[in-house]
Amino acid sequence: MDCDYRIYGDIKSGNCYKIQLLMSLLDIPHDWVHIDILAHQTHTSSFRAMNKNAKIPVLEIDGDTYLCESNAILNFLAEGSSYMPSSGLARARVLQWQFFEQYSHEPYIAVARFINKYLGLPEDRHDEYLSKQGGGHKALNVMDGQLSETPFFVGEQPTLADISLYAYTHVADEGGFDLGGYPHIDQWLARIESLPGYVSMP
Amino acid sequence: MDCDYRIYGDIKSGNCYKIQLLMSLLDIPHDWVHIDILAHQTHTSSFRAMNKNAKIPVLEIDGDTYLCESNAILNFLAEGSSYMPSSGLARARVLQWQFFEQYSHEPYIAVARFINKYLGLPEDRHDEYLSKQGGGHKALNVMDGQLSETPFFVGEQPTLADISLYAYTHVADEGGFDLGGYPHIDQWLARIESLPGYVSMP
Ligand SMILES: N[C@@H](CCC(=O)N[C@@H](CS)C(=O)NCC(=O)O)C(=O)O
Ligand SMILES: N[C@@H](CCC(=O)N[C@@H](CS)C(=O)NCC(=O)O)C(=O)O
Repeated sequence: MDCDYRIYGDIKSGNCYKIQLLMSLLDIPHDWVHIDILAHQTHTSSFRAMNKNAKIPVLEIDGDTYLCESNAILNFLAEGSSYMPSSGLARARVLQWQFFEQYSHEPYIAVARFINKYLGLPEDRHDEYLSKQGGGHKALNVMDGQLSETPFFVGEQPTLADISLYAYTHVADEGGFDLGGYPHIDQWLARIESLPGYVSMP
Repeated sequence: MDCDYRIYGDIKSGNCYKIQLLMSLLDIPHDWVHIDILAHQTHTSSFRAMNKNAKIPVLEIDGDTYLCESNAILNFLAEGSSYMPSSGLARARVLQWQFFEQYSHEPYIAVARFINKYLGLPEDRHDEYLSKQGGGHKALNVMDGQLSETPFFVGEQPTLADISLYAYTHVADEGGFDLGGYPHIDQWLARIESLPGYVSMP
């Protein structure tokens, strides 16, 4: 492909790291522009011109086209690769896990981690932090159940479902989630980490 | 296609109605099994055997395969139709809006509506209800901005992006959201409602 890619993001945000991980696994050249959300760099008018929703990550394509939403970016970049089945139930199943990640996993595990790791668990967000624990464990249970049946989320091979869910799961301890009770998740993390081209979150 | 479809859902839930709307637009035969979430019918062991995550909607395919997550179901059913571009940036852009819906729209607008319409705005959830208003209006603003540029979310023709976002937007007033300040959303709702095969939420 003859394309220039630039990512606007924060490599320690799971939603941004997902993109970095896939690009490394697929060996896709790109530059990275660091955006500091705590310094409100997602709220400038130039940033909003790229993403009206004022969030990272954003993918810039050929200098003038912008794509938002981490999981949509993954779908765009993985097209034609083994990480995304091209049709039918297999493709829909990968999407099922990506929507699960955004609705039932990230709002608990990523938000608890943000409050703890980025904000330093301030007193006035302590209740919110605690309120995220139940939903996070529910998601981890659902994941462990699937991984007791198949080595990756959609069968025998890694797909975008695994990339999306790996991003915040492997740092769930930073949100107060002990993965000790989830043996199948533990084995799956190791499987992802041994993929050729794997790159860790710095 | 030689397929038997059954939906487990509640037609007044936007996430379930999305499926009904697409099936009507594409004229796809199916049966509907009503599931009452307030009666905890999503938490029985037979329901959990279909969806470990214990949520509606669920699509049953040929009596033995189950697909979850409303937006993944839409992708499966719309494959090959004009509602889902088959590749590239157009396809990724539809997914972008579907992930936006699940992350930045539904958790505010659908949840406020649920607290108000399903639960009758009980005193102990009043603060939560109020806390959803800001995020809901933020999402409506992002939508109105896009619809000031294009008649549908991804250009000149309706796609799954429109189906996903229509579901809860057209009943946003039931969550306390006045759509009066969003003229482009208003015109877009009318555009959806005039599509051949359109069916309203009962
Ligand atoms: N659904 C979005 C979520 C993106 C998101 O929440 N990004 C965070 C950082 S991880 C952000 O930009 N926060 C700043 C803000 O919302 O102001 C995606 O998957 O890309
Ligand atoms: N991300 C899911 C959300 C589904 C969802 O939240 N369903 C609600 C009804 S609209 C439900 O089943 N609630 C019952 C529960 O969570 O116990 C989807 O898009 O299908």
